[in-house]
Amino acid sequence: MSEHIVTAFDQDLKQLAGKIAEMGGLAETIVNDSITALMRMDGELAQSVIQADRRLDALQFHIEDQSVLMIARRQPMAGDLRQIVAAMRTCNELERVGDLAKNIAKRVIAIGGELRSKKLAIGVEHMAELAMVQLKTVLDAYTQADAETAKLVRERDEEIDRLYTSLFRELLTYMMEDPRNITFCAHLLFCAKNIERIGDHATNIAENVHYMITGQQLTDERPRSDEIELADFDSDN
Amino acid sequence: MSEHIVTAFDQDLKQLAGKIAEMGGLAETIVNDSITALMRMDGELAQSVIQADRRLDALQFHIEDQSVLMIARRQPMAGDLRQIVAAMRTCNELERVGDLAKNIAKRVIAIGGELRSKKLAIGVEHMAELAMVQLKTVLDAYTQADAETAKLVRERDEEIDRLYTSLFRELLTYMMEDPRNITFCAHLLFCAKNIERIGDHATNIAENVHYMITGQQLTDERPRSDEIELADFDSDN
Repeated sequence: MSEHIVTAFDQDLKQLAGKIAEMGGLAETIVNDSITALMRMDGELAQSVIQADRRLDALQFHIEDQSVLMIARRQPMAGDLRQIVAAMRTCNELERVGDLAKNIAKRVIAIGGELRSKKLAIGVEHMAELAMVQLKTVLDAYTQADAETAKLVRERDEEIDRLYTSLFRELLTYMMEDPRNITFCAHLLFCAKNIERIGDHATNIAENVHYMITGQQLTDERPRSDEIELADFDSDN
Repeated sequence: MSEHIVTAFDQDLKQLAGKIAEMGGLAETIVNDSITALMRMDGELAQSVIQADRRLDALQFHIEDQSVLMIARRQPMAGDLRQIVAAMRTCNELERVGDLAKNIAKRVIAIGGELRSKKLAIGVEHMAELAMVQLKTVLDAYTQADAETAKLVRERDEEIDRLYTSLFRELLTYMMEDPRNITFCAHLLFCAKNIERIGDHATNIAENVHYMITGQQLTDERPRSDEIELADFDSDN
């Protein structure tokens, strides 16, 4: 590979990292806004979340296309290839985070009125705060190529899962106490589930970051059958 | 490209198509089993769904890795590249379908008992039947490279969405009628949502099929920013 081509490749990689950072920042913003919209029952803010999610979708397709083109054009070797694959996977996760925030925003519009009682929603807000910290931390770990922090994010996901389980029960109790809570709490159940899944996607990104840096899969749960071949790629080409 | 290399590439493509077909068949089976498990409250069948979903995850990683390797090694041109990208996207969708079926199976285990009343769940079953037809039809369209059928699948998704909206209201009504229905119906709400999303993934696959065959995006909703560059790829390389 000539000096010129290597430099062009590095530029491509930098551009890719920049787009992921843009996507990450946008995903954080729309998660935050969707929760604010929920707590304030702010339909206008909810609408803006739905709009912003379209930008996230566009960015995902852009990154996916650019990644495929880079692989085809530059035939990158192990470490570089891993970086591109991690970018593709991460943008896929961020797009899903955006969808989940959009779902929350749509529920705000579906509820379409006053917050029935702040008390009912407070647990959802608390869970969302944890999920947002997870998302922010893992995006920093991605930017700084920090495998250790990524690992910590993955371990902390349990806390969100536990919170979700107790919140599920709590919301059912409110429903049983007063049938007038049922519709509102049903929507909150879905919001809580969406947040729990945002936490899962932060975990998936953490696994990508770890893989990108170390070439090793963190997970024993998610079988990644032939990934070893990515590392074998050099010798084969 | 030598004759030899072209043949090897065709073989790779065929293998890729075979793996997608395997994934598709497995996804259909586990969706079907998850609904059967729900209607019969069959915890054992639910467990087998959770197990089978792991195979789906493994297949996804295998297909993703193989696709990346194919792109890097063979530097395919427009139509072939589209086919690989469509395979990657489709396996991603199928993995998500598997997750949704697994979620339904997990709820069967969480409910852990008798079906409270068949009447409460009948709407969910009906919705699932529609979603399964959509999934089967779009997978056939993928195998037969049938863009027209793919388009039909996409149009029919509205029906599932409408059904979901009316089911949501119906389940809330059951909850209000009798608080003893609340826990069971809350789980059913999530099952219904999962099925609605299986329908969405069938739609996404339909869009992939159409794109793979025609090189055109069906959607005006989902902006795919720079995809045109995939078609430009020939001239650039």
